[in-house]
Amino acid sequence: MESKLSVRVYLEDTDAGQIVYHANYLKFMERARTEFLREVGMEQSTTLQQEFSFVVHSMDMQFKSPAKLDDTLDVRCALKTASGASVVFEQVVSNADTGTEHCRATVTVACIGGSNLRPRRIPRDTMRRLKGAD
Amino acid sequence: MESKLSVRVYLEDTDAGQIVYHANYLKFMERARTEFLREVGMEQSTTLQQEFSFVVHSMDMQFKSPAKLDDTLDVRCALKTASGASVVFEQVVSNADTGTEHCRATVTVACIGGSNLRPRRIPRDTMRRLKGAD
Amino acid sequence: MESKLSVRVYLEDTDAGQIVYHANYLKFMERARTEFLREVGMEQSTTLQQEFSFVVHSMDMQFKSPAKLDDTLDVRCALKTASGASVVFEQVVSNADTGTEHCRATVTVACIGGSNLRPRRIPRDTMRRLKGAD
Amino acid sequence: MESKLSVRVYLEDTDAGQIVYHANYLKFMERARTEFLREVGMEQSTTLQQEFSFVVHSMDMQFKSPAKLDDTLDVRCALKTASGASVVFEQVVSNADTGTEHCRATVTVACIGGSNLRPRRIPRDTMRRLKGAD
Repeated sequence: MESKLSVRVYLEDTDAGQIVYHANYLKFMERARTEFLREVGMEQSTTLQQEFSFVVHSMDMQFKSPAKLDDTLDVRCALKTASGASVVFEQVVSNADTGTEHCRATVTVACIGGSNLRPRRIPRDTMRRLKGAD
Repeated sequence: MESKLSVRVYLEDTDAGQIVYHANYLKFMERARTEFLREVGMEQSTTLQQEFSFVVHSMDMQFKSPAKLDDTLDVRCALKTASGASVVFEQVVSNADTGTEHCRATVTVACIGGSNLRPRRIPRDTMRRLKGAD
Repeated sequence: MESKLSVRVYLEDTDAGQIVYHANYLKFMERARTEFLREVGMEQSTTLQQEFSFVVHSMDMQFKSPAKLDDTLDVRCALKTASGASVVFEQVVSNADTGTEHCRATVTVACIGGSNLRPRRIPRDTMRRLKGAD
Repeated sequence: MESKLSVRVYLEDTDAGQIVYHANYLKFMERARTEFLREVGMEQSTTLQQEFSFVVHSMDMQFKSPAKLDDTLDVRCALKTASGASVVFEQVVSNADTGTEHCRATVTVACIGGSNLRPRRIPRDTMRRLKGAD
């Protein structure tokens, strides 16, 4: 399973080095994960009020080349593994026109309980959806 | 002339009050102005390197009702006046599904010289494009 | 009553125009209002969980000159009026070394109920603290 | 060598999950690296205009526990290695009052040329300062 989100680089995303500010790639990646989860039937606004939600547990990122103002980016999100209380995504941000890779990350997301914010098993039907067996 | 941009509310846009953080509406509005200018033939990445650019000079904003996570917003941008060294836009952010108005602003944008950052007259062909007489 | 907060400009605050991104002045001003309210005994993390909180209702802003990377800014917050369900602040952002004014705003903040998010009167003891009569 | 920066959590830093938005820890860490570099005599506003600058090359992050609105955080920055064209920092964000660790990262920063944005050796006197042998 893979999803792709198109993102335009606006002035808000850049910094005085005249490139995309590094932390903003994490925002782009989180947007793509959100759309990925929406596609499998989970809205964050719903899960936040429910018995569980997903939070970023760890990230391993490489910044390859800088994106710039007005670039159109492809932000990819692929499910690598899902088991127990965590989901691992592979994400790549690249230029939509040239294919140049800007950034790449392995993102581990943890399932936590809605009330106590502690790790918990991913609910069964959510897991089924994630695994595309719905 | 009016343009409309569709914006999804992501986690990055919200705050602990569980609504869109007020300053982020300015980002949404700036995205819509950028697309408006792109439609009339001006890319910021190009103008930033040229003899002029546009910067926000003043804003008058009203926040009417809070937008929330996962909302889809319509961000409107209408040219009110363009003369001398400034352009005035009327902008409205509303819920794409219900039409509820979240935020409204009158934004005055100033034309400044690329090298000295001082106010300067809007170049004639840019003015023509803004006025839709191209 | 007036309070002053010192803010350093970091890369995150700037944009590709190599100046502070305009919407970020609103963040600086909100930090200063937060410290102002803390000084009079109100923490947002507490009020958010209580029967009321403050949200920005409207702003009238002028951007005078651009602040840059590594600048140290003074962000001033003065109470102009407080009555009924709203508080009006006068805020100025200036360079701490040269005194150059970057940005100025009149910010109207509304008191809303914690559960229904509708306007409500400012609680009496909060009003007393705001007016410095505590 | 280690430096420590104190950071207050404001509304802008939080999200609808009522915790600090994960990407914002990268901003806090970048602020701490900036102050670290300032202490050894390098200002980004200066280096950006010079023959080299530092950009984030890769990060390995773990998010341990969520920070919240109004928390005061200690953001630590320690130089791990500096050689050739890169510097590696160890960074930790923890609660200033309780010591609870929120986030931890190994950040590799690359030295790039001011004009071509390609990797280049760290200038000798910069390296001396980094190594504290100045």
